[in-house]
Amino acid sequence: MRLAVVGFGGVGRAFVELLVLKRSLLYDEGLDIKVNYVINSRAGVYAPDGIDCASLIKFIQKDNDLSHYKNGGSKNINFDSIMNKKDIDVLVEMTPTNKKTGEPGMTYVKRALENGIHVITSNKGPIMLAYKKLNMLAARHSVQLGIGCTSGGALPTVNGGLIDMAGSAILSIEGVLNGTTNYILEQMEQEGITYHEALKKAMEIGIAEADPTLDVEGWDTASKLLILTNILMNEEKTIEDVSVEGITGITPEQIEQAKQEGKKYKLVGRTQNKAGALYMTVRPEKLDEWHPLYRIDGKNKAVRYVSDTLGDLTISGGASGVTPAAASILRDLINIHRGYRYSR
Amino acid sequence: MRLAVVGFGGVGRAFVELLVLKRSLLYDEGLDIKVNYVINSRAGVYAPDGIDCASLIKFIQKDNDLSHYKNGGSKNINFDSIMNKKDIDVLVEMTPTNKKTGEPGMTYVKRALENGIHVITSNKGPIMLAYKKLNMLAARHSVQLGIGCTSGGALPTVNGGLIDMAGSAILSIEGVLNGTTNYILEQMEQEGITYHEALKKAMEIGIAEADPTLDVEGWDTASKLLILTNILMNEEKTIEDVSVEGITGITPEQIEQAKQEGKKYKLVGRTQNKAGALYMTVRPEKLDEWHPLYRIDGKNKAVRYVSDTLGDLTISGGASGVTPAAASILRDLINIHRGYRYSR
Repeated sequence: MRLAVVGFGGVGRAFVELLVLKRSLLYDEGLDIKVNYVINSRAGVYAPDGIDCASLIKFIQKDNDLSHYKNGGSKNINFDSIMNKKDIDVLVEMTPTNKKTGEPGMTYVKRALENGIHVITSNKGPIMLAYKKLNMLAARHSVQLGIGCTSGGALPTVNGGLIDMAGSAILSIEGVLNGTTNYILEQMEQEGITYHEALKKAMEIGIAEADPTLDVEGWDTASKLLILTNILMNEEKTIEDVSVEGITGITPEQIEQAKQEGKKYKLVGRTQNKAGALYMTVRPEKLDEWHPLYRIDGKNKAVRYVSDTLGDLTISGGASGVTPAAASILRDLINIHRGYRYSR
Repeated sequence: MRLAVVGFGGVGRAFVELLVLKRSLLYDEGLDIKVNYVINSRAGVYAPDGIDCASLIKFIQKDNDLSHYKNGGSKNINFDSIMNKKDIDVLVEMTPTNKKTGEPGMTYVKRALENGIHVITSNKGPIMLAYKKLNMLAARHSVQLGIGCTSGGALPTVNGGLIDMAGSAILSIEGVLNGTTNYILEQMEQEGITYHEALKKAMEIGIAEADPTLDVEGWDTASKLLILTNILMNEEKTIEDVSVEGITGITPEQIEQAKQEGKKYKLVGRTQNKAGALYMTVRPEKLDEWHPLYRIDGKNKAVRYVSDTLGDLTISGGASGVTPAAASILRDLINIHRGYRYSR
């Protein structure tokens, strides 16, 4: 399989590194991977017979400008270069997320699919905005659209619902889908500190981002819930359909009160059917100790599906960080190689 | 897809019923299923254009002898009839388990695969004894061997390890894989009763079988652990390689002592690597409240995989009973239809 890696930040680099580390596993899979393109927003590397990934990883640790890379680096290698040559089988699309327009990922994903190229993406934007259309586009061109990374990374939320529940109707979805907020709530409970103190701590140890708004106000959870709802319940909802409340208003008194009751606050994303209508909510919920999501602690995540014929399924775990996220891209790649049709 | 259903007990009937109930979902999948054969140990039904499943289900509720069924029932329809005509795409093999010889399932599975027919089986026997060989046979004939039902039924232990962890090395497996023993231990703890009292209760409400030996002495757990280990860690272990201890020796005093310590006894199946050697054990373990398997209660089951690049994954839930087991057969069928190659 010939790949183009577009977007070369933390996850992109971890992915290319993983291809080196997992060489023997990939060989056993019968999967001969050549990375023909690595492209970021400023430059790119092109090698028609495959880039030496180990050498590129070494290079990028010293020099951030891909155009300086001797074996094929150039300022003139960009997404259009791929479309001109069309000498790849899979586009690994990892450009930054834009939840309003989906760009530039939206255009890249569309153009690749239209040209009969499989796409695996880590980019929530295009998937939140246009999953169904993109999936139909993929089906029309007999290629696959792998999106496992967009909703939980290493935690197999998409495969869990799509493959592990195949043949069963998913009646409801609930999940603790954001590690940052889960960590903050845990810190508030364990240390008896305020929201702002817990947030500061999360930022200091690198769990919360410099701008944690999307996490703490619930939008990251809402995005993931939206993606899962549209895919697993065959809906075409938008982010406006989700009622969203974050954790910024939670007080130490509320946390303490919950503790007294033997309960815990979790930021829960929930899709459920009530009297024939679908409701999607993200809000802090007090869960009692028997709830399957009660013990999802620290940076962990979990999702629970209730189905008609396969019972309940709770999936928890999945490490955080760039390597697990990259491993979720590799997972989609292997499953596509194994013939699984995500797009039908 | 043309099917033969061989073995027509509780799960077999639930499966045929599910095909009727799920007609519209299967239609949406583009999956046109015709059941050409339904066979049990005494007779069979054959209809070259597909059996009327709804009518057969009605019939069997009144008359247990398939040879009396008017549209194709006969004492002369048996597995050889299928092999003579070879007019099916998938064998759904649900004959009773024999863990010593695997028969008659072993022969049926082999012959079907050799003749280029996909096999989905609920039968632990052949899978415990010869998974690797059967899987290679399937690969050689470019067909699939679906075995999701053999290790946890509705709980997607096989898919969870094979598909959701694709590209990652599974380093250890641990699971609460038997609902009966889990229920008995829970009853002992909650009601303060002896093992024998709890077993009696489990038998009365139909959770434990008339002969509960395989469950309570740990062999059911060992069988499932063996199957998962061989598939997910690419081993060729046998049941003799598993060190097995059941729950029959657990005393109320031990249960009470664990409770005092804030712990619970669970019958845990465990495969782990120690200094380069693989150890498989089944035994009652005292788990503390932070252990991911601590809260797997009642008849529930769960499995936990630790991997190198995708972190930990705990999968819990999955209803018990004939319909969920049948739904796990249907799940494999759909995933094979979606192109997934279980056999490589």
